[in-house]
Amino acid sequence: MANPVLVEVTRGGLVESRHRGALAVVDADGKTVLAVGDVARPVFPRSAVKALQALVLIESGAADRYALDDKHLALACASHSGEPAHVDGVARMLAQAGLDASALCCGTHWPVSQPAALALARTGAASALHNNCSGKHAGFLCAACAMGVEHAGYWRPEHAVQRAVHAALEDMTGTVLSPDRRAVDGCSVPTWAAPLQNLARALAKFGTGQGLGPERGRAAARLRLACGQNPWYVAGSGRFCTEIMQLLGTRAYVKTGAEGVFCGALPELGLGIAVKCDDGAGRAAEAIIAAVIARFLPLQDSERSGLAHLLRPTLRNWNGIEVGALRVTEALA
Amino acid sequence: MANPVLVEVTRGGLVESRHRGALAVVDADGKTVLAVGDVARPVFPRSAVKALQALVLIESGAADRYALDDKHLALACASHSGEPAHVDGVARMLAQAGLDASALCCGTHWPVSQPAALALARTGAASALHNNCSGKHAGFLCAACAMGVEHAGYWRPEHAVQRAVHAALEDMTGTVLSPDRRAVDGCSVPTWAAPLQNLARALAKFGTGQGLGPERGRAAARLRLACGQNPWYVAGSGRFCTEIMQLLGTRAYVKTGAEGVFCGALPELGLGIAVKCDDGAGRAAEAIIAAVIARFLPLQDSERSGLAHLLRPTLRNWNGIEVGALRVTEALA
Repeated sequence: MANPVLVEVTRGGLVESRHRGALAVVDADGKTVLAVGDVARPVFPRSAVKALQALVLIESGAADRYALDDKHLALACASHSGEPAHVDGVARMLAQAGLDASALCCGTHWPVSQPAALALARTGAASALHNNCSGKHAGFLCAACAMGVEHAGYWRPEHAVQRAVHAALEDMTGTVLSPDRRAVDGCSVPTWAAPLQNLARALAKFGTGQGLGPERGRAAARLRLACGQNPWYVAGSGRFCTEIMQLLGTRAYVKTGAEGVFCGALPELGLGIAVKCDDGAGRAAEAIIAAVIARFLPLQDSERSGLAHLLRPTLRNWNGIEVGALRVTEALA
Repeated sequence: MANPVLVEVTRGGLVESRHRGALAVVDADGKTVLAVGDVARPVFPRSAVKALQALVLIESGAADRYALDDKHLALACASHSGEPAHVDGVARMLAQAGLDASALCCGTHWPVSQPAALALARTGAASALHNNCSGKHAGFLCAACAMGVEHAGYWRPEHAVQRAVHAALEDMTGTVLSPDRRAVDGCSVPTWAAPLQNLARALAKFGTGQGLGPERGRAAARLRLACGQNPWYVAGSGRFCTEIMQLLGTRAYVKTGAEGVFCGALPELGLGIAVKCDDGAGRAAEAIIAAVIARFLPLQDSERSGLAHLLRPTLRNWNGIEVGALRVTEALA
């Protein structure tokens, strides 16, 4: 059974492209509030669960031991744009644990932000610090140091840090993440496939603390507040995750992952959200998340108007002419 | 009816993303050799028909009058990467007609090639010449000058150049392209939606000259040879279109368009090809084109091995680790 078309891309008077996918909105007890498409098929959450991967950073004692502030914690949960303050923040995280960029094993790429990449090219060159995952990796390195284990190889599945991350993901999703569910992420750490309904439940637990032990509950709350209060550090200038949390603060936690995945939480409603576009399209996943927020979260007029351009993004060409738009379909209504 | 899944993206042992779409392989008489999915639905061909849009450049007499060489003609058919020789070639085209970059109305963007963009940032800034469509626009401007009409506004549907392009597209596709089929392309010129079966037939006519008058047939042959013999000018370093034509020369003409469209021709077989990925994914459209070539065109061993990495591209992460692959499905077998 094909998943339904969730987002249409129009050009002129016609639909130019169509994005199919699935989404689950679930509470912390696992009760499904909304399920569209196949929510039982395992999906690699990629970077959309960075905040769950970062639980280990808190629970290992590293965040306190190395005096990481909330911006550092937001960076540990981030797919950042590689803008200067992101890079400086990650370098600082490493320095607090007595490390530097040479310890990072995420690989090097130029900043996701084109303005940041072009500005960097004028004065320097890309390093692993500019990798959008460098904050997550710095968090893993801090955790390794606090755990008193050799930090080299921190990205391997058998390393103590990744074993702790794996256990946290199993606990949060309520699923067994067996080795056949494991693949290698873009930054080389393991990514574990789980059904959307389980990912959504994990996010509901993350957003509310329900179903978590006291230590894990405190760690989740600390990370969630760090992200909601420092949304620029979770993504960057003009990015969807940043704009949503700048608009709604801690009322909505949202996080993108590669290949059209998105996770989110609406704490006051006790809900978690997980989205996967079949084709991997981030533009469609963003519109779906905006639609879920607009549907479920009571919004003030200013919040609703601030959300409008994310809910129905206009497409403009290189001359600024409006050429089309994205719109969610009735499958989401 | 959903179009079938044509390409799967794997990660580890699982399928991570899926691309649906349709394709038509048709001869110049309109006889269908292969049709998968809905080939009757109108599709915006975007840049995949730049060579058809460039017929007017030849037929207006502009190519001869302004002594354009085959590299210039390839640039007129190109979505180029904005590398220095692309930019220089377009500037030369404009100079031959007594114009300069200020006449271009395609808008400005940084080079599609990240290395070219970063190198440019170190020494200068992007201009309209770096827009991937600048060669097409330079061709329109040359045509306007040769036609003796005011070149300003050459991108508007009512301008003589775009009316001539529209007539050429109707002739080549064998369809009426009414105003409700028109939208604005990324570079502001009109794009006209036509069914894949008609686009494929247009490419078969372009590739063979069959069904064309003598003047149009000569123009098509000249453009096809210019592209096949100068494939770097049609796209750029490491780009799919360039690699295919570097490998197969004039045996295969291929051209990408935005939003997952691809057109091609296999002249020795008399066939035209048109592909649309429903979701707009270029990566999948490329794999489909490679699969169609591998299926229909008799290949030498060296050609087959040269095609392998385009037919089943390996996905590597920022550390060079193989994390997955693209593969075409049995729907294409």
